[in-house]
Amino acid sequence: MAKGLTKRSENYSAWYNELVKKADLAENSAVRGCMVIKPHGYAIWEKMQAQLDKMFKETGHYNAYFPIFIPKSYFSKEASHVEGFAKECAVVTHYRLKNDPDGNGVIVDEDAKLEEELIVRPTSETMIWDSYKNWIQSYRDLPILLNQWANVVRWEMRTRLFLRTTEFLWQEGHTAHATRQEAVDETVQMMNVYAEFVENYMALPVLRGRKTESERFAGAEDTYCIEALMQDGKALQAGTSHFLGQNFAKAFDVKFSDKNNNLEYVWGTSWGVSTRLMGALIMAHSDDDGLVLPPRLAPTQVVIIPIFRDEDQLAAVSEVANKIVADLRKQGLTVQFDNRDSYKPGWKFAEYEQKGVPVRIAIGPRDLENGEVEVARRDTKEKKTYALEGLTDVVVNLMDEIQDNIYQKALNFRKENISTVETYDEFKKVLESKGGFIYAHWDGTAETEQQIKDETKATIRLIPIDQQEEEGVCIYSGKPSKGKVVFAVAY
Amino acid sequence: MAKGLTKRSENYSAWYNELVKKADLAENSAVRGCMVIKPHGYAIWEKMQAQLDKMFKETGHYNAYFPIFIPKSYFSKEASHVEGFAKECAVVTHYRLKNDPDGNGVIVDEDAKLEEELIVRPTSETMIWDSYKNWIQSYRDLPILLNQWANVVRWEMRTRLFLRTTEFLWQEGHTAHATRQEAVDETVQMMNVYAEFVENYMALPVLRGRKTESERFAGAEDTYCIEALMQDGKALQAGTSHFLGQNFAKAFDVKFSDKNNNLEYVWGTSWGVSTRLMGALIMAHSDDDGLVLPPRLAPTQVVIIPIFRDEDQLAAVSEVANKIVADLRKQGLTVQFDNRDSYKPGWKFAEYEQKGVPVRIAIGPRDLENGEVEVARRDTKEKKTYALEGLTDVVVNLMDEIQDNIYQKALNFRKENISTVETYDEFKKVLESKGGFIYAHWDGTAETEQQIKDETKATIRLIPIDQQEEEGVCIYSGKPSKGKVVFAVAY
Repeated sequence: MAKGLTKRSENYSAWYNELVKKADLAENSAVRGCMVIKPHGYAIWEKMQAQLDKMFKETGHYNAYFPIFIPKSYFSKEASHVEGFAKECAVVTHYRLKNDPDGNGVIVDEDAKLEEELIVRPTSETMIWDSYKNWIQSYRDLPILLNQWANVVRWEMRTRLFLRTTEFLWQEGHTAHATRQEAVDETVQMMNVYAEFVENYMALPVLRGRKTESERFAGAEDTYCIEALMQDGKALQAGTSHFLGQNFAKAFDVKFSDKNNNLEYVWGTSWGVSTRLMGALIMAHSDDDGLVLPPRLAPTQVVIIPIFRDEDQLAAVSEVANKIVADLRKQGLTVQFDNRDSYKPGWKFAEYEQKGVPVRIAIGPRDLENGEVEVARRDTKEKKTYALEGLTDVVVNLMDEIQDNIYQKALNFRKENISTVETYDEFKKVLESKGGFIYAHWDGTAETEQQIKDETKATIRLIPIDQQEEEGVCIYSGKPSKGKVVFAVAY
Repeated sequence: MAKGLTKRSENYSAWYNELVKKADLAENSAVRGCMVIKPHGYAIWEKMQAQLDKMFKETGHYNAYFPIFIPKSYFSKEASHVEGFAKECAVVTHYRLKNDPDGNGVIVDEDAKLEEELIVRPTSETMIWDSYKNWIQSYRDLPILLNQWANVVRWEMRTRLFLRTTEFLWQEGHTAHATRQEAVDETVQMMNVYAEFVENYMALPVLRGRKTESERFAGAEDTYCIEALMQDGKALQAGTSHFLGQNFAKAFDVKFSDKNNNLEYVWGTSWGVSTRLMGALIMAHSDDDGLVLPPRLAPTQVVIIPIFRDEDQLAAVSEVANKIVADLRKQGLTVQFDNRDSYKPGWKFAEYEQKGVPVRIAIGPRDLENGEVEVARRDTKEKKTYALEGLTDVVVNLMDEIQDNIYQKALNFRKENISTVETYDEFKKVLESKGGFIYAHWDGTAETEQQIKDETKATIRLIPIDQQEEEGVCIYSGKPSKGKVVFAVAY
C-alpha cells in the first residue's frame, strides 16, 4: 500500500530516507543540515522526553536552562574539549543587520561586530561549569544534579534526518560531586537509566559498556555508552554518559571545601541522548510498509476507522465507535476515531500503517450486526475479529503483547547478529556477510583500533560492562589481550 | 528574614532584581543579556509550559520543531517584518574555528565563511511559511494548527532577567487557514486561551484588546494582546496573538485550491508567550520577604519542616510527617519533607518563604503530644494550629483559598489602579501619582500616540475588546474620538 517506499532489502538507506518523509516525521529545511521535525515525529519525541524526564527526576535530577551562546575563549579552557568541539560549529560574529544601500534587502552591519565571537553551543560543559564555579563553595552545595533540554548545533558535513543533523534536540545532564566514586556511580547510573529507557520504551535491546580512549568524549576520563543494532547490521550509539573526572573543575577553577575545610576540585559527569534516538527507533523496528512503533511511544495507540456508505451507516458506526473510544481512553490509551469522509477506508488503512499506529480497529455495518469488530496489529499485520463484549481488555492486553513482541523480535535479530571471532579473516568475513556486533580480542592500542577501522570501517563500539577476563591474542596484531571487546560498523 | 532584600516601596526595580536572585530563579550569564534559568525558576516555567501545552492541545494544536537558523534573505521577503525583526539579531557568518597559529586558543577560520549569513531566529514566521508552501496544496490540507516550544534571540541593548533578555524561551503558534474569518477566530481564541491561563493559573487578571497600528507585530494586520498590571503601577504585555492576513502567504507564495478549484492565498496567525511571564508572575504577587507563588504553579506546594533536638525527636516527627506527605500526595499535591540536619528550622522557614512555597507545615515534639501541627500560609503570613485529624482536607482546601486570595488581591489592586480621565492634565496627574491603567479618548492617529509617549512615556496598551462606543474628544489633540483606549507606562 505504501506507494513508492523502497524495500529494505533493496536499499536500506533509501528506505529510511523515504520512510521518514512518508510517515511524516521530518524533512530537510532550507538551511543545510537543519531539519524540520513534523508534528507526528515531534509527538513521538515528546513521548520520549516525557518518559526520560520522569526517569531523570526519579533519580534526583532537576531541569535548568543555560544560554545557547558560549564565548569562544571558553572552549580553549579545557585542552581536549576544544579539539573535539570548537571546530565545526556555528560562529556568531555580528549582532545587527542593516538595509543594503543598494536596496537589495539587508546586509550585515560591520559596525556591529562582537568583540569576542560567540559559538552556538555544541554541548554545554563550558558554560555550565562556568556557572558551577559561582554555585559551589562547600560540600553542602554538592551534589548538583542538573539536566537541560535544549537544541545544539554541530556543523556536520554529511547529514541525515534524525541520525546526524547540524541542529538537533537533546538533553544534557551535568552533575557535580564531592568524590570520585560518587561521580563514577552517577555516570554508571545514567548509562543504566538510558538502557532501561531504550529497552523498556523503545523496545530495543542494547549492549552496555565503556568507550576506548579514542572514542571518548572530548574532555572525559571515561565514557560509558549503550549500543543498539539496526536491521542492516550496523550499530547505533544510543546514549553516552561521561565521567569527567576533575577536568572541567580544573579548567573553570571549581573547588569546594570539604567537611575538614580542605579545598578540593569538584568531580563531574555529563550525559546525553538526542533526537538521534528517533533514527534508532525508526530503523530498528519498521518494515517495508512504513513505521512500526512500540505502543509505549506511539502518540496514537489505537485508530478506529469506520466503514460506511452513507450518513446513516456512519451514524450507527459512530455510536459504537465513540463507546469504544471512551472505554479505551478510560484505560489510559490514546485513541483516534478517524471519521473523515474526505478519505476512503483503504487510504486510511495505508496512512495509519505507514505512520505506525499499533492497533487499528475497523467497524462496518455488518460488524455491527454481528456485534464484533476487526482488530489489526501493525507489528505482525495479523487481523482478527473480536466481539464488542470484552474488546477493551483485548486491546489493553494487545498493547503489552505488541510492546513485548517488538522487543523480542529485535532481541532475536541481535542474537542472530552477534558473532565471536578469533581471527582477523573471520572478522572480515562476518563483516562482509552480515555485520552485526563482533566480539573479538584487541591488544588495547589505539594504533590497532585505527588500522582495523581504516581497513574495515568497523570500530570498537564498547568494552562490555560485563567483560569476561580471559587470556587471548589480538585478532589484528597477535599481541596479548585480556578480554574481548565489541566491534561493529556504526552509524 | 530575607536578608538584604530591598523593600518594594524603596526601590521596586532593585527589589525585583534581588528577589530573582535570592529566590534562586535566574541569574545573568557570562554572555551579555543571556540568562541562566536556575532549577527553581525552571520548575515554575515547566508548570506553565505543561498547562499551556495542555490548553493548546485541547484547542486542536500540535507541536513541531523548525530550525533555529533562518537565511538572511528570508527576512526581506515580508517588507514590514524585516524592519521589525532583522535588525538587532545574532548573525552567524562562519562555520568553523581553527587553532590560532600564535597559540592563543582558537580563532575564526576565514575559509569557512557562509555564502549566505544565517540569523538566529528572533521569531519563526519566515521559516515556517517557507515550509507551509510545500505542505499546503488543497483546502484539505487546512487548517494547519502548529505550535513550537523554542528559544529565540533578539539582540536587546538593555536587558533584565526574564523581562527582557537576549535569548529567551517561548512558544510560538503558527496557523494556516482557508478563510479570513477562521484565521481571525483563531487569533481571538488564542488571546482568550492566554487570558484564561494568566488569570486561572498565574492568578493575575488581564485586560484583553487589540494593539494600535504602531504597536502591532511586524507583519501582522492585527495584534490582539493581554495586559497585566504590576505592583508598581506599570503594565506588562503578557501575551500576543497576531492575525497575519495573507501577508506571509504572499511573501512565501503559499496558495491552496479551494473546493471550487480556485487558487487562493492562505490566511495566517501567530501567537506567543515567553519566559517574560515569569517576570510578570514574580512582580505581580511577591512581597518584601520574597516570592509569592499561586499554588497551581508552585513546584513545591507544601513543605514540611521538622523541629527536633535529637535523633529520637526527628524519628518521632518523621513518622507523622511521612504520613502527612503520603496523604497529601495522594490528593495530587507536591510535598517536600525537609529533614536535613545541616540547616536549622529558622533558616528553612526563611528559605521557603523566599522561594514562595504556598504552605509550610511545622511539626515539633510538643505538637506530637497535642496531636496537632502549625500551618503557615505564604500569601497572608497567617499561622494556625490544626489537629492532625482532618489535616489533609485543610491543606487541600487551602490550595484553592490561596489561589483565590492571590487573584483577588491582584484584582483589587488593579481596580484601585484603573482610572478614567477626560483631560491631558488629569492624565499626567494620574501617571505621576500612581500610574496604572488609564482609560482615555484618543483621536486614532499615530502622531498623537507618539507625542503622548514622548511626553509621558505612556503608550496605548490596547483598544479594549469590549470597547464602548461613545462620542468624546482626544485628551491630547481635542479631535473627535469614538471610544476610550487604555494607556499605561509599560515594561
